[in-house]
Amino acid sequence: MDRKLDHTSSYQRIGPSQFSDLTGFYDAQKAPANLTETRRRVDAFVNKHSSTGRRIVLVTSGGTTVPLEAQTVRFIDNFSAGTRGAISTEQFLERGYAVIFLSRQYSLLPYSRHYSHSKNCFLDFMKPDGLGGITVAPQFTPAMLKVLEKYNSVKQQGLLEVVNFVDVNEYLFLLREITASLSTIRERAMFYLAAAVSDFYIPLGKMVVHKIQSGDGALHLELDQVPKVLSPLVKEWAPKAFVVSFKLETDPSILISKAKTSLARYGHQAVIGNILSTRKYHVILITNEEEKDIRLPEKEADAGAEIEGLFIPELISRHEEWIRQASLQN
Amino acid sequence: MDRKLDHTSSYQRIGPSQFSDLTGFYDAQKAPANLTETRRRVDAFVNKHSSTGRRIVLVTSGGTTVPLEAQTVRFIDNFSAGTRGAISTEQFLERGYAVIFLSRQYSLLPYSRHYSHSKNCFLDFMKPDGLGGITVAPQFTPAMLKVLEKYNSVKQQGLLEVVNFVDVNEYLFLLREITASLSTIRERAMFYLAAAVSDFYIPLGKMVVHKIQSGDGALHLELDQVPKVLSPLVKEWAPKAFVVSFKLETDPSILISKAKTSLARYGHQAVIGNILSTRKYHVILITNEEEKDIRLPEKEADAGAEIEGLFIPELISRHEEWIRQASLQN
Repeated sequence: MDRKLDHTSSYQRIGPSQFSDLTGFYDAQKAPANLTETRRRVDAFVNKHSSTGRRIVLVTSGGTTVPLEAQTVRFIDNFSAGTRGAISTEQFLERGYAVIFLSRQYSLLPYSRHYSHSKNCFLDFMKPDGLGGITVAPQFTPAMLKVLEKYNSVKQQGLLEVVNFVDVNEYLFLLREITASLSTIRERAMFYLAAAVSDFYIPLGKMVVHKIQSGDGALHLELDQVPKVLSPLVKEWAPKAFVVSFKLETDPSILISKAKTSLARYGHQAVIGNILSTRKYHVILITNEEEKDIRLPEKEADAGAEIEGLFIPELISRHEEWIRQASLQN
Repeated sequence: MDRKLDHTSSYQRIGPSQFSDLTGFYDAQKAPANLTETRRRVDAFVNKHSSTGRRIVLVTSGGTTVPLEAQTVRFIDNFSAGTRGAISTEQFLERGYAVIFLSRQYSLLPYSRHYSHSKNCFLDFMKPDGLGGITVAPQFTPAMLKVLEKYNSVKQQGLLEVVNFVDVNEYLFLLREITASLSTIRERAMFYLAAAVSDFYIPLGKMVVHKIQSGDGALHLELDQVPKVLSPLVKEWAPKAFVVSFKLETDPSILISKAKTSLARYGHQAVIGNILSTRKYHVILITNEEEKDIRLPEKEADAGAEIEGLFIPELISRHEEWIRQASLQN
C-alpha cells in the first residue's frame, strides 16, 4: 500500500491474501461451463490467422463482477462501459490485426458501440417506408454506412472473435486458456489488457448461497485479493508475446510510479497509464525506456477523433520492433 | 434477520443503521445536480395528463449502484438488466396509462429493449441498399415494424417520461421528488417499484475519495443500511396512491412471509413476489386479501408471451377498484 488511508474510511485491510501467488487459485475455483468449447473456438481462430502470418491481439474489455452470493443478486463491479476496448479493437482491425475480444457481457462492442449506450434511442433512426419496409432516416445514413461497411468486411474475413465473461472468475479462467492458445504464435501475439479487473473477490468456499437479507444492522464484507495473473502470463504462459497492461487511477501523483513498479514486477513491455477524469484525451505510454505523454488536441476530439487512434499506432510500431528483434536472435 | 447465517459466510452484521427511520438521510447526503430540472419536467408531465384524467404510473427499473469511492472506480451493484420494468412499461402504455420510467442508466428501455442486450448485433439487421441508403433486412422487418409503430405512437402522444439514475443516492432523491409530483393526482397514481434498490450503502461522510489501492491484504468493507423509503412514501408522501412493491428472493421458503411482513409494515396495497430463477414464468400477487399464483404456460412463453401481460391487468383492475372505493368515500 502506497498511501495512508483516510481515518473516516469505511474499509481496511485484514491480513494476507490466500492465493497471492496464484498457487491453488485455479484448483479452488470452479471453471466456467463453456471453457472447453471456447478454447476450441479460439484455437481454430488462432490457427487460421497464424497460417497467413497475421498478427493477433487479445483485447480484454469491460469490468469484471465479483458476486457476493452464489445465487447472485448482488455483486461488486468496476466502472467500465468497455469504450476503450471497443474503440481499440476497431483500431487494431483497421491496422491489419486479427482480434480476440474478451469482453464483459453487454459492454460496448466494436462497431455497434456507435449506436449503443447512446442518448439517441436506436428506434429514432428508423423510418417505416410506407410500403411495409423500414429504412434508416437519411440524416443518419452516411455515418451508419461507414460503420456498417467496416463491420461487414471484418465479419466476412473472420477477423474478430468475441468471447464473453461476467465475473472475475470466468475472466481469469478464459484469460489463461486464450493465452495458452495465443502463445503458439510467439512474438506475433499482443496482449492488450484493458479490462477493469477486480482486485478483490470472495472465494467460492466463503460465499453464501442465498440473497443476503437486509436486517436491522450494517453489513460487513470481507474480500480476498485476486491473484496477480499478469506475473505467470508474462513469465510462463506466453513469455514471447508483447504485453501491454493498463493502469487507471484517480490520483495523478501516483500514476507513473505505479506503472513503473508494475513493469519492474511483471517484466512486460508497456503500460498505458490514464486518469479516470481525463482518460479520453490523455494517456501516458510507459515502457522501460520512456514515458511518452500522448494527448488528443481538443479540436480533433471535437471533430470525433479518439485517442486510441494516436497511441495504438505507437504500440504497434513497438510490437513490430519486438518481432524484428526476436527474428534477429533466431 | 429471519435466517441463520452460514458459518463460512464472508459477511456479518455490525450494529444498528444510522438512518433506519430516514431521519437525517436526505440532509446528510448530497442531492443530484439535475434534481430541480427533473422535478420541473415531471411536474409538466403530470399536469398535462392529469388534466385529461389519465392514470399515471411510476415504474422504477434496474439496479442501483453503491459507490465505494467518491471518484468512483468500484461499486456494488444489484443484478438487474431492467427487463421487468421495460416490459411492464409497454404493458401499462398499451392499457392507457401514462408512464414515468425511473430507470438505471443504460438498462433496458421499453421498445428498444427488443434490440438491446441481444445475441444479435443491431448491425446484423441492416443492409446497404446499394444506392447510398440502408434498409432493415426483410426477415427482421415485420417484427421491427410493430415495435416501431408503438414506439412512435407513444412518442407522438408524449405518454412516456424517462428519468435516469445510477447510484442509490440519486434514486432516493429522484423518487422523493417524483412522488411529491405524482401525489397531486391522488388515487389515480400508481407506484410500481420494480427497481432492485440496494439495501446497503456507504454514507458520503465515510467514503474515501480516491481509488482503493490493491495492497498485500484482503479488503474489509463496512456498509450502512439504506433507509426504508417505502414507509414515508406510503404514509406521508403519497398516502392516496396505489402502491405495488416487489420482492425478489432466491429462497422460495421465505418469499410469502417476507411479502406479508412488508405489507403489514408499510401499509401499501400489493407485493409482486418472485424467485430469481423462475421470475420470467411465475410470480405471486400478494395483497392483504389474497395470494394469487400467476404462471405463464410454457407454450405461451415459447410463443413470445411475457408474464407481465398476465399480472399487470390484475394490478390495473385492483387499481381501478381502489379509485372507485375512494370516489365512493368522497
